Amino acid sequence: MDVLTHTRLRVIRAGIDTYQQPVVYMHRDCEVCRSEGFAAMTRVEIQVGGRSLIVTLNVVVGDFVSVDEVALSEAAWLALAPEAGALASFRHPVPAASAGALRAKVFGARLDDAQYLALMQDTVASRLSDLELAAFVTACAGERLDQDETTSLTRAMVAVGQRLDWGVGPVLDKHCVGGLPGNRTTPIVVAIVAALGYRIPKTSSRAITSPAGTADTMEVMAPVALDLPAMRRVVEQEGGCIVWGGNVRLSPADDILIRVERPMDFDSDGQLVASVLSKKIAAGSTHVLIDMPVGPTAKVRSDASADSLTVRLGGTAAALGLHLGVYRSDGTQPVGVGIGPALEARDVLKVLRNDADAPADLRERAIVLAGALLDLAPDGVAGTGMVRAHAALQSGQALSKFMAICEAQGGFREPTRAPFTAEVAATMSGRIAAIDNRRLARIAKLAGAPASPVAGLETALRIGDVVARGQALFKVHAQSRGELAYALEHAARSMPFDIAMEAT
Amino acid sequence: MDVLTHTRLRVIRAGIDTYQQPVVYMHRDCEVCRSEGFAAMTRVEIQVGGRSLIVTLNVVVGDFVSVDEVALSEAAWLALAPEAGALASFRHPVPAASAGALRAKVFGARLDDAQYLALMQDTVASRLSDLELAAFVTACAGERLDQDETTSLTRAMVAVGQRLDWGVGPVLDKHCVGGLPGNRTTPIVVAIVAALGYRIPKTSSRAITSPAGTADTMEVMAPVALDLPAMRRVVEQEGGCIVWGGNVRLSPADDILIRVERPMDFDSDGQLVASVLSKKIAAGSTHVLIDMPVGPTAKVRSDASADSLTVRLGGTAAALGLHLGVYRSDGTQPVGVGIGPALEARDVLKVLRNDADAPADLRERAIVLAGALLDLAPDGVAGTGMVRAHAALQSGQALSKFMAICEAQGGFREPTRAPFTAEVAATMSGRIAAIDNRRLARIAKLAGAPASPVAGLETALRIGDVVARGQALFKVHAQSRGELAYALEHAARSMPFDIAMEAT
Repeated sequence: MDVLTHTRLRVIRAGIDTYQQPVVYMHRDCEVCRSEGFAAMTRVEIQVGGRSLIVTLNVVVGDFVSVDEVALSEAAWLALAPEAGALASFRHPVPAASAGALRAKVFGARLDDAQYLALMQDTVASRLSDLELAAFVTACAGERLDQDETTSLTRAMVAVGQRLDWGVGPVLDKHCVGGLPGNRTTPIVVAIVAALGYRIPKTSSRAITSPAGTADTMEVMAPVALDLPAMRRVVEQEGGCIVWGGNVRLSPADDILIRVERPMDFDSDGQLVASVLSKKIAAGSTHVLIDMPVGPTAKVRSDASADSLTVRLGGTAAALGLHLGVYRSDGTQPVGVGIGPALEARDVLKVLRNDADAPADLRERAIVLAGALLDLAPDGVAGTGMVRAHAALQSGQALSKFMAICEAQGGFREPTRAPFTAEVAATMSGRIAAIDNRRLARIAKLAGAPASPVAGLETALRIGDVVARGQALFKVHAQSRGELAYALEHAARSMPFDIAMEAT
Repeated sequence: MDVLTHTRLRVIRAGIDTYQQPVVYMHRDCEVCRSEGFAAMTRVEIQVGGRSLIVTLNVVVGDFVSVDEVALSEAAWLALAPEAGALASFRHPVPAASAGALRAKVFGARLDDAQYLALMQDTVASRLSDLELAAFVTACAGERLDQDETTSLTRAMVAVGQRLDWGVGPVLDKHCVGGLPGNRTTPIVVAIVAALGYRIPKTSSRAITSPAGTADTMEVMAPVALDLPAMRRVVEQEGGCIVWGGNVRLSPADDILIRVERPMDFDSDGQLVASVLSKKIAAGSTHVLIDMPVGPTAKVRSDASADSLTVRLGGTAAALGLHLGVYRSDGTQPVGVGIGPALEARDVLKVLRNDADAPADLRERAIVLAGALLDLAPDGVAGTGMVRAHAALQSGQALSKFMAICEAQGGFREPTRAPFTAEVAATMSGRIAAIDNRRLARIAKLAGAPASPVAGLETALRIGDVVARGQALFKVHAQSRGELAYALEHAARSMPFDIAMEAT
């Protein structure tokens, strides 16, 4: 191990948000830079108090920091939590133990359990730079991660985080592969299943490449950034919860990988399976239902892709002792009316409240999925799940349970509406032949979702519907005029509805 | 196209070096962030005066910038060159035209000419983030770039930069594949070839993953950061030059890719060929000799690897109309005595000056390579090159030419010595069975090379030499005590010499 610098620098807060990547700012002329030969983008180990962290160095040539100071980005500041006036020492980090494994994977090798464990240990210890993480994610894309490797990666992701133990009895869970705007069944399914007495401690992600993750939508209605003791309290009290997975850090390596996958806007089968199943195993789940929407513009585009993903999910689950069911759903068009956190939350509440104008497709999808999950549970009578799910929803049991969960998570709140909206009209008359989910999602994102929770769009139109020229196809919601204008302008160039002229 | 923001922010210099990645710092509460929905790590297009640039946004939550300011990193500042008090407008960048091509490549597709051109156009326009560039480099690693793709990538790299035209007559050039510490033949070869009346406008790189690039070594003796008019003046006057390629921007896309390859410490066959040949074609070269050292710890490790790289180089050169020769050299041990910019420069000067203690292996290697390049030239009589090269060196013609080139580049200077040195002794007696080039390079890098030009190490020992316990194996040179200690401590753990006990 390299020795720490003799010279220590006074720690200050840079007040710069570098999107979770820990960065330190050090003056070019400071003694540490000069004596240790640190240069811009060098990886440096910083030690403050009892804590240490590997960070990226940005070299300051102006007067933003003085020669006896080191400034920390928000991520570094939060991780090191220095006391006022604390002094930091530095050293060259020992090369990441997994550097060889990363290189081997980039050049096409198959890696084993020990290599994936080393990679995930270095990932959570911040020993790999964002560039190296991007290389790792890329090297695992497509067919480059085989079944055994997927299992190894999943196991490694579980090993580097904490794992919940709920004691005896089944622990149910569901997950949607995603890619289908508005498909916000989770809050409804959790409410139904918990109302029927099952344990379902659901952790959800924020949006990765979509306009809203389940955690984003749920956050519109109740706090989701619960820590582990709070989550446990909610589940012990109500049987279920819907919390953000990032704060309970059940698979912290996955959260870090998502940080680089997100700006690049791509992920892959093996990584998707490892991401989903590592979270489920870490959450202590025993019986998991996967909702897999299939459609030309969903995440899973074809039956062939669905087949291979199902095999990969099943193989990995089996290798790790998890009971898994996969429900293949229609992914050709959105579900519900709203796309975006608050707009989707409104749909969820309408279904739970049995409102007359609740989106029928969302309601049906939630009942089917809850039923399939109930049938998967060890004590269920196969084929009775849907009937029980329907009854729990119809009777108001599910709504009561949902409200109780929201209260237990910190208090229910009603979704609000965006200050700026505008409708986009059909430029010709005809019948809707196809809907491009990706274009819908892109418009909702450009309107500001999920960063602006009220942003997104609404549409009740479906494939086969007849529209007249000038009729509204969808309504864009935004928090700012700039975002509204940007979304509308993009929509005009990239229309999500394919309208076919009717034969006369 | 999205419209520019109405609100404009006053441009200030952040004085932060982010290693060539353009970054802007904007306050979280500024009107642009709020109205446009920009968040940390968003890609933003900034427009100042007549120039625009796509940059990464870091959001400031402290008081480092005010709400009506935007601070630019060094790279952004240099690219935009704002006038005092300039105001900047912003907009969401149009998605990179090559995003689809990048995604396709990551998932294993073969790309065509148009797709590589789009990728390289977006690379030089800074439309791809460092994460996306890392993904691209990774997606092209190993066998993932085929012959046609390598040609397409090379052609695209040439197309997005400028291309020199030297008029009629052959333009000679040489390039070493690298990985062999101390193998600093370029200044000698250029001097010999130019002394014999040929045109050899050599551009060299700085170190990518090695302790010294040719540009780093040459810079110890003369300025190398010449712009294109200056380079042309030198070549027209002296027939040859040895300048840093980065400043003449002959293959600017390559320079940008190297920026992400460098911290990751890996590159690959296809990218290597595209990198080398794009620079040569852009430089207007017609006849190029490649020095390819082969050895277990060189960049090219085996004859099989050398074969495939040679085929790839030859195929790409032929497709692009370049005459190419490949000389396969011994890569089992270093060449010369010094490793590191100044130490290698000393070796070069000793050879040119015909000093009695000039490293014989460096001298011989330079003569062989110059001879092979002369034989490749269209007007050469095959087989006479080595004799002519030897004569030019022996007679002092090469030295005179080298000095004239240095003067034309801005003036010759003698290399200096490092303030701190220490020897590392053999821990046992025996015969040197193997030398690990990578370990030697790593020690030289840890000693501070190439950032500290005088740093590195010296060793004259070769495979087969007998050493006694306690005898110095090599001498480490460093600019600072910290770097010296770090290099020595690493050397103790990772000895580059394999000493076999002698049979008694």
